[in-house]
Amino acid sequence: MIIILKPEATEAQIALIKDEMSKNGLIIQEIQGETTRMIGLAGDTSMLPPEMATRYEFVERVMKVSEPYKLASRRFHPRDTVVELPGGVCVGGGGLAVIAGPCSVESEEQILSIARDVKLSGASLLRGGAFKPRSSPYSFQGLGLDGLNLLKIAREKTGLPIVTEIMSPEYCDVFARDVDVIQIGARNMQNFPLLREVGELGKPVLLKRGAACTIDEMLQAADYVLVGGKSPVILCERGIRTFETATRNTLDISAVPVLKKKSHLPVVVDPSHGTGHWDLVCPMAMAAVAAGADGLMIEVHNHPEKALCDGQQSITPFLFDNLMQCVTRMHKIIMDDRSE
Amino acid sequence: MIIILKPEATEAQIALIKDEMSKNGLIIQEIQGETTRMIGLAGDTSMLPPEMATRYEFVERVMKVSEPYKLASRRFHPRDTVVELPGGVCVGGGGLAVIAGPCSVESEEQILSIARDVKLSGASLLRGGAFKPRSSPYSFQGLGLDGLNLLKIAREKTGLPIVTEIMSPEYCDVFARDVDVIQIGARNMQNFPLLREVGELGKPVLLKRGAACTIDEMLQAADYVLVGGKSPVILCERGIRTFETATRNTLDISAVPVLKKKSHLPVVVDPSHGTGHWDLVCPMAMAAVAAGADGLMIEVHNHPEKALCDGQQSITPFLFDNLMQCVTRMHKIIMDDRSE
Amino acid sequence: MIIILKPEATEAQIALIKDEMSKNGLIIQEIQGETTRMIGLAGDTSMLPPEMATRYEFVERVMKVSEPYKLASRRFHPRDTVVELPGGVCVGGGGLAVIAGPCSVESEEQILSIARDVKLSGASLLRGGAFKPRSSPYSFQGLGLDGLNLLKIAREKTGLPIVTEIMSPEYCDVFARDVDVIQIGARNMQNFPLLREVGELGKPVLLKRGAACTIDEMLQAADYVLVGGKSPVILCERGIRTFETATRNTLDISAVPVLKKKSHLPVVVDPSHGTGHWDLVCPMAMAAVAAGADGLMIEVHNHPEKALCDGQQSITPFLFDNLMQCVTRMHKIIMDDRSE
Amino acid sequence: MIIILKPEATEAQIALIKDEMSKNGLIIQEIQGETTRMIGLAGDTSMLPPEMATRYEFVERVMKVSEPYKLASRRFHPRDTVVELPGGVCVGGGGLAVIAGPCSVESEEQILSIARDVKLSGASLLRGGAFKPRSSPYSFQGLGLDGLNLLKIAREKTGLPIVTEIMSPEYCDVFARDVDVIQIGARNMQNFPLLREVGELGKPVLLKRGAACTIDEMLQAADYVLVGGKSPVILCERGIRTFETATRNTLDISAVPVLKKKSHLPVVVDPSHGTGHWDLVCPMAMAAVAAGADGLMIEVHNHPEKALCDGQQSITPFLFDNLMQCVTRMHKIIMDDRSE
Repeated sequence: MIIILKPEATEAQIALIKDEMSKNGLIIQEIQGETTRMIGLAGDTSMLPPEMATRYEFVERVMKVSEPYKLASRRFHPRDTVVELPGGVCVGGGGLAVIAGPCSVESEEQILSIARDVKLSGASLLRGGAFKPRSSPYSFQGLGLDGLNLLKIAREKTGLPIVTEIMSPEYCDVFARDVDVIQIGARNMQNFPLLREVGELGKPVLLKRGAACTIDEMLQAADYVLVGGKSPVILCERGIRTFETATRNTLDISAVPVLKKKSHLPVVVDPSHGTGHWDLVCPMAMAAVAAGADGLMIEVHNHPEKALCDGQQSITPFLFDNLMQCVTRMHKIIMDDRSE
Repeated sequence: MIIILKPEATEAQIALIKDEMSKNGLIIQEIQGETTRMIGLAGDTSMLPPEMATRYEFVERVMKVSEPYKLASRRFHPRDTVVELPGGVCVGGGGLAVIAGPCSVESEEQILSIARDVKLSGASLLRGGAFKPRSSPYSFQGLGLDGLNLLKIAREKTGLPIVTEIMSPEYCDVFARDVDVIQIGARNMQNFPLLREVGELGKPVLLKRGAACTIDEMLQAADYVLVGGKSPVILCERGIRTFETATRNTLDISAVPVLKKKSHLPVVVDPSHGTGHWDLVCPMAMAAVAAGADGLMIEVHNHPEKALCDGQQSITPFLFDNLMQCVTRMHKIIMDDRSE
Repeated sequence: MIIILKPEATEAQIALIKDEMSKNGLIIQEIQGETTRMIGLAGDTSMLPPEMATRYEFVERVMKVSEPYKLASRRFHPRDTVVELPGGVCVGGGGLAVIAGPCSVESEEQILSIARDVKLSGASLLRGGAFKPRSSPYSFQGLGLDGLNLLKIAREKTGLPIVTEIMSPEYCDVFARDVDVIQIGARNMQNFPLLREVGELGKPVLLKRGAACTIDEMLQAADYVLVGGKSPVILCERGIRTFETATRNTLDISAVPVLKKKSHLPVVVDPSHGTGHWDLVCPMAMAAVAAGADGLMIEVHNHPEKALCDGQQSITPFLFDNLMQCVTRMHKIIMDDRSE
Repeated sequence: MIIILKPEATEAQIALIKDEMSKNGLIIQEIQGETTRMIGLAGDTSMLPPEMATRYEFVERVMKVSEPYKLASRRFHPRDTVVELPGGVCVGGGGLAVIAGPCSVESEEQILSIARDVKLSGASLLRGGAFKPRSSPYSFQGLGLDGLNLLKIAREKTGLPIVTEIMSPEYCDVFARDVDVIQIGARNMQNFPLLREVGELGKPVLLKRGAACTIDEMLQAADYVLVGGKSPVILCERGIRTFETATRNTLDISAVPVLKKKSHLPVVVDPSHGTGHWDLVCPMAMAAVAAGADGLMIEVHNHPEKALCDGQQSITPFLFDNLMQCVTRMHKIIMDDRSE
């Protein structure tokens, strides 16, 4: 942490702040620029409110030097994390894990039909919302526990591990028992009590990036899960909110190589929420794989025009099959490039 | 809702979509532009996924006409809502309600000292965080239930009603019993299960705008609380996330007149989080009052340079006293202007 | 400037970069954190590409310490600049300068009628677009030089100095001769050749903030004008582009106190473009004055529903008269507060 | 265009607005929702200020239905445009055109060395800035006409057509004579006089997206060039400004398929400016090609750590050679997928 002083700061004031920081166990070093005087602080500044020093009237600004996250950082864990799931499915480690399924579970017939189709096309995991976060209280909110049961039936019939979103700590026990990967949705990326609780469950957590959250904040949220020491984390880029309205969100594909550089955790991309338009899903899935993603999350519906949720961004099983062929071919090229 | 068709849409396709929409109980009207053909839909489209129709390949775009919120809308509730609190304090209705106190409750001495000071300067409510949402798991997380007890002591000693943030449904009973206004923080504005639960408690809810949420989404979130039929809502603008980094957030002062136009709910502004710098709090508090805010939420700390949280944006009791004088004088002018 | 090294940086690499920076005339200081090693650089780093050092593979990041602007900075010019105009009009220095008039000059009758009305209500300057930057080539583009002549007639009849926008260097001579304040529009805030040329003309320049430009970039743009040494600059906040669509732009009122802190230049606010809705103009004008603005820029049209440009955000002369009374009263209160 | 009326609109008011719109030559159609009344307008609304009708107090909102651009639209020009350049180079039409070279031309030795290297690796065009738009007036501003001459020498020696940025209309004649593709930089995307002038020159124009401009605004800017009827346009996505600071801009890869859907113009992507970090250039170049881009624009420097501009985002000729092999292989896969 570096404290930049105002030109008018007096020696007495500088002595005061140095004294204060020493009490916090920090090592102090003065830095003299030609026009600017600074104080460098070494030691554990994580418990120190980052901008605290700015409160002194003679301080101009404070700059953080260290990364604000630890357990998610590649600095302290150089090798890639591979998340292993039932049935030998892995996320990370060189393969391409494709999670596919409807936005919401709507009926047994629907989820079984889609699950079989995506399995045949090569999906590794089945997604489906049982509890749905909807902007409006008047929209369909999901089937709840009934939806969860339908997912379990689909898993039994197809062998696909299941991923579904948790919205409230009260269902932690059920999710820990019944679900293979617990999804934290974008709106809950900074629901810290929920993050802590899922971090205790010992099940892999798929953490979606909040629409207004930076990459650093996402890795801090991952740390909230990882401090529990039990649940591995899969990161998921799904678009950020910008001024552009041609797409539902702006899918930040560059987050893939940035996250792979900063963190050891596997990274998947959701081009369905990321774009909000079914005809953009395939090109953006291709882009995600080309940029180095470890997996994809794709909304597939057998009758998208009748879907109770997000039909506009869902693709049919037919298109999904085509997508799988394209991304598989591309992933092979990427892996060949790397191994050269 | 208006469905805009692609030029190549055939009569058979148009008949299909008209038929589908009729089944949903909607009244259909064809609209013929010179180059564009459209279908207008009247009736209750709230359960209809807004973009569902875009899934048809012959549909170009869908435009929503109605507001996506109901209970929060001024259209169905033309008169201003006034939220009445213990001790005769009102939010809305022409007065200026100032909520003041520290970011976090840190000790009995701290909260009592600040509570007495802000009371003397004319604050109407006391704020103080007991449960703190922090981006990093390594930062101070608040005193929890102990903090709540200290707030109750401060209320007893000063008579000020208390406002504090709830982060998890498990504390709903305690908050319903002990707190005068339950705050939903910006990061939980779209934590829908939590919104529903506080809507059942019968206590006023202060709903902060999410940093990436639109005004319409904020009013939809208010609807989640209001559907319970028991808890009135106070809206709070606290800054949105933009590219500008000179301030912590960009305080959207224009949200005040926009919210007052769209909704009957009272609107308060938090210039402390909105700017992130203590020396911007007073000018932005003035701006908020000038734009028509019903109240303010101000972080005050007796030793901001030692605050465990957000000291950089907290003002001292001395500066708060000065702020109260300025905003009171200005509020009087604004009210005189209106009554002319 | 501080260079943060990667943990794996070797002594040889550190020696290399120190040597390189010394050649650029910079003074080097090593800073040793507990986990991070850094190099501090003092001296003139303005010609040094700020991120240049990040190109070394052993460098993690570079942080700029100094402000990127000079002539606009309050650091080197502590006293407020007051821009003096013909007829004794001043912008800055404690008064409130209101610039009013139509978006576009449309006819002699129109501009004269509006000019007389705003003069009577107390406006200090007349605005009116002759050359209009329009997103679409099919929209009305302004009357050009004919519009400029009509503005001159209006000035002659009312005595109001005129402000109008320049879009191309080819009209510099005409503007220098005929216009009192030369406006640089938001879309041209980073049109650097144009900034340099108007900086040579010796006429005050009203510099509008680009919709995606930071406050620091705005002050760098002011430096482009100020390096000419002849033309003083008035800064104008007019809203930035964000995800919110309820307003045309998000008017960043906090830019007013931030700019007053960082710079000595006067600051005016344009709530017409800043909001895009006529009924938000008055509350946001009030907010701007309350936050400390030195002036306002208001679009006024005698028949807004027939305006060839931006009628939706123009107010009538009647509403403008009302606005002037409100802001004048408020400005007096603000000035009284300050002088206490 | 659809005008949405307020519930309180009277018959007389509705008659008034219908009359007004008829006078503008528009065909009127009333649309009756259950709770909302609307007026549909058919005909040429392009000269009608889009939000004009909102100025009537009984109008709630106006929604545009048609696209705001014409010449750039695929609707009126279904087949892909292919831009042909000297030496048989094409942009669009199925190939992959790679534009490579330094941010700025610095010396004959530098530009020749880089030009030869990128030619050998398979680049189709040479880029290099002669006139540089820099945020600060104290930064290196380019070699100007001397830089242009060095580019011509490099073209002569390598046969590569040259692309360079124009910043001011005064150099139009020189650029028309000497340059193969005239670049409009992001900061000038809405410099309308400049767009009009280059549209008269009969040379292909590479139009970069403004950092805060929507896709629709970009296509409107293309229309400004295309109305001249002489110069074809190549669109270039280069990142938009968002809250994320891990990258210089957020490269909007989804703009590629969106632009290809809306427009017939070729689309290239600049991952150098789009990310601002040399080690993100290759993965994002791959992503762009995977998403369907017709070309790339890559900053290459033989000594990036000594570059006078943007060294942090430039790659070496060695890395460029590697990138070319990767993207070429991937482009072949993409083309094979399509032809199936």
